[in-house]
Amino acid sequence: MKKKISILLSIGLSAILLAACGNLGSSSSTSTTTSTSDSSSSGYQTTGQTNDNDYTGVIINGKYKTSKSRGLGVTQNSDNLLNLKSFETGMTKISKAFFSTDDYIFREGQILSKSTLTNWLARKSSTNSSGLNPVDNGKTGETTRNPMYVQQIEEQDYMKETSSGKLKLSGITIGIGMNRKDYYEKEEYGATYSTSISKEEMIQQGKIAAAKVVARLRKKVGNNIPIVVCMFQQAEADSLVGGSFYAYTEVKSGSTISSWTDTNLASYVFPSTSTNSVPNDNDESAFETFENKIKNFFPNLAGVTAQVQYKDSTLQGMHVNITTQFYSETEITSFTQYVAKAAKTYLPSGIPIDIEIKGSDGTVQSFLARTAKGSSYYTHVFSSY
Amino acid sequence: MKKKISILLSIGLSAILLAACGNLGSSSSTSTTTSTSDSSSSGYQTTGQTNDNDYTGVIINGKYKTSKSRGLGVTQNSDNLLNLKSFETGMTKISKAFFSTDDYIFREGQILSKSTLTNWLARKSSTNSSGLNPVDNGKTGETTRNPMYVQQIEEQDYMKETSSGKLKLSGITIGIGMNRKDYYEKEEYGATYSTSISKEEMIQQGKIAAAKVVARLRKKVGNNIPIVVCMFQQAEADSLVGGSFYAYTEVKSGSTISSWTDTNLASYVFPSTSTNSVPNDNDESAFETFENKIKNFFPNLAGVTAQVQYKDSTLQGMHVNITTQFYSETEITSFTQYVAKAAKTYLPSGIPIDIEIKGSDGTVQSFLARTAKGSSYYTHVFSSY
Repeated sequence: MKKKISILLSIGLSAILLAACGNLGSSSSTSTTTSTSDSSSSGYQTTGQTNDNDYTGVIINGKYKTSKSRGLGVTQNSDNLLNLKSFETGMTKISKAFFSTDDYIFREGQILSKSTLTNWLARKSSTNSSGLNPVDNGKTGETTRNPMYVQQIEEQDYMKETSSGKLKLSGITIGIGMNRKDYYEKEEYGATYSTSISKEEMIQQGKIAAAKVVARLRKKVGNNIPIVVCMFQQAEADSLVGGSFYAYTEVKSGSTISSWTDTNLASYVFPSTSTNSVPNDNDESAFETFENKIKNFFPNLAGVTAQVQYKDSTLQGMHVNITTQFYSETEITSFTQYVAKAAKTYLPSGIPIDIEIKGSDGTVQSFLARTAKGSSYYTHVFSSY
Repeated sequence: MKKKISILLSIGLSAILLAACGNLGSSSSTSTTTSTSDSSSSGYQTTGQTNDNDYTGVIINGKYKTSKSRGLGVTQNSDNLLNLKSFETGMTKISKAFFSTDDYIFREGQILSKSTLTNWLARKSSTNSSGLNPVDNGKTGETTRNPMYVQQIEEQDYMKETSSGKLKLSGITIGIGMNRKDYYEKEEYGATYSTSISKEEMIQQGKIAAAKVVARLRKKVGNNIPIVVCMFQQAEADSLVGGSFYAYTEVKSGSTISSWTDTNLASYVFPSTSTNSVPNDNDESAFETFENKIKNFFPNLAGVTAQVQYKDSTLQGMHVNITTQFYSETEITSFTQYVAKAAKTYLPSGIPIDIEIKGSDGTVQSFLARTAKGSSYYTHVFSSY
């Protein structure tokens, strides 16, 4: 029980901090989206590429080209903002398999506006014929009401430079976030209830929504642009790790969705609990050995948790989070060195790992990272003059 | 004025976050210090060294050997916790010139206990003959009272391994933090007043205190251990950068303090204000060009500030802090790439620079770092599954 509380405290804290990514000052888009089969702009710049594995982004007149639906993701994931990070990171990752970072430039979604997507994400009704979620059947019982299946939609644009130096839209990725639990209130500011949705139903409803989204998008961008659609299962509100993508498909120029590829991805938290077992016990024991070496380093305890991702039963990577009370800068430096040694010795090799070390207030004091191929950890202690 | 507020907001935030480094659960030491001219321990381990430039630290029975005065620095710097970071980082840096990281192992201070130092840092009185600060003259006027000159003292131990595999105390660094402004209240929970201390008086009082500290330390550890003493000027309570060391001296085996070496170090904040001009205008203009490139990247403004350190008029390094409101993970990645490009182009070369990029809630979203010799920035975006 004590263990569980400390996990809640440390990861819960991250979630609270993330929550403040807020949407103060967001501009609400009131115009409707203009159909553009070929979005071009001259005089663009890019963000520059620090890493071959990252896309460069589009800058116009010195300003970043922000999404036409900027801020919607924050609103739609307010139950658990971890979902927003996993959704967007996962979408970019899947996109790389179709749109190479060498050939394509990333642009935040410019086709679907915030108002369009807000309508799509709402229930279908007499005033909102484009709603992807079912009509309100008037019932409020957890099993009798129609749940909201589709929680979020995001568009990412992949551009190529034409011979005349303009940017041409050359690929689109659409992410669709589906609920396994739909949270609702029976009255405003009342208690929160939830309707559970089976995995089968989620997949089924996701296919229906995806087909509609692709058809609508084709009307806006024409038939010549490949569209990658990826389906995301939202994590529950109290989850300490975000959801993950369960399937994707590429809709080539001129066609519609024919089949889906399962990703077999799933995310977990270490240490696992009785209700959250992990695919490979060896990884969990390796983590626990590491945890035991770390948590008693100081007279006061350190909380050690990790978010991990699996593809079937193979570990894909690890984000470790360590929280403890520091009393001096030298304690931070010594602890960081010790963690680097313990991580190298005990944590699984061959996967990317990063470790954030935080003070008791949640401020990052140092961090360590190792790539999949690396053997040693890069370490950095956040210092101050 | 607007500029000034945004600096206060962003750096002020760091200070507030640091403030929570707190001292909950600190154990107060009640025993008096035992004299040990030769502190040894068998069966020790070390933290490991991730970097030739860092000391390895001492671990005994799997636990870090924490300072005998652990937590005192947090208490003594509660007015401005930036002072604690600069004090400890600076002490370690000066120590490296005398005790090489290849030959010496770092141990948190074990000679001076928390109660001993608490007495030393208090006023001299009939019940506290060891107080380094002047007796209370009964006056409360800002210019009529006796100010507290000495604000903090910290001990760092530098160890060598003997042929029998034991650790032997082989060097000590003592840091002494001196006030230029002594804050006080005339009644408990009342308004805060302050007594200013001239630079000359601070230096003079520092020399007196240092001589007493060295003499007392010699009684505890004998004459054979070199003692490095370094003198720190505390930054004021509302400073956005910590204080800095102004002088140091090495007291070789068997001798007393003969002369002092000035460091000529001083810390500043960019962008500078009318009351805070910097030694070299070129660095400031380079920073402002960088700032202008960054702050308008998104439709919402980004706050850009830096802590810098100078030795005479030569820039020694820079900690840049950027705060903005992000609406998506892709915005964070794109912004980080853009900052890397701008930093490489506009910020001064040949000095270590690190850049923390924070969301509007103060959570670090990504960071960049370049060593003095490096040309490119290491970048890391904090991700989540």
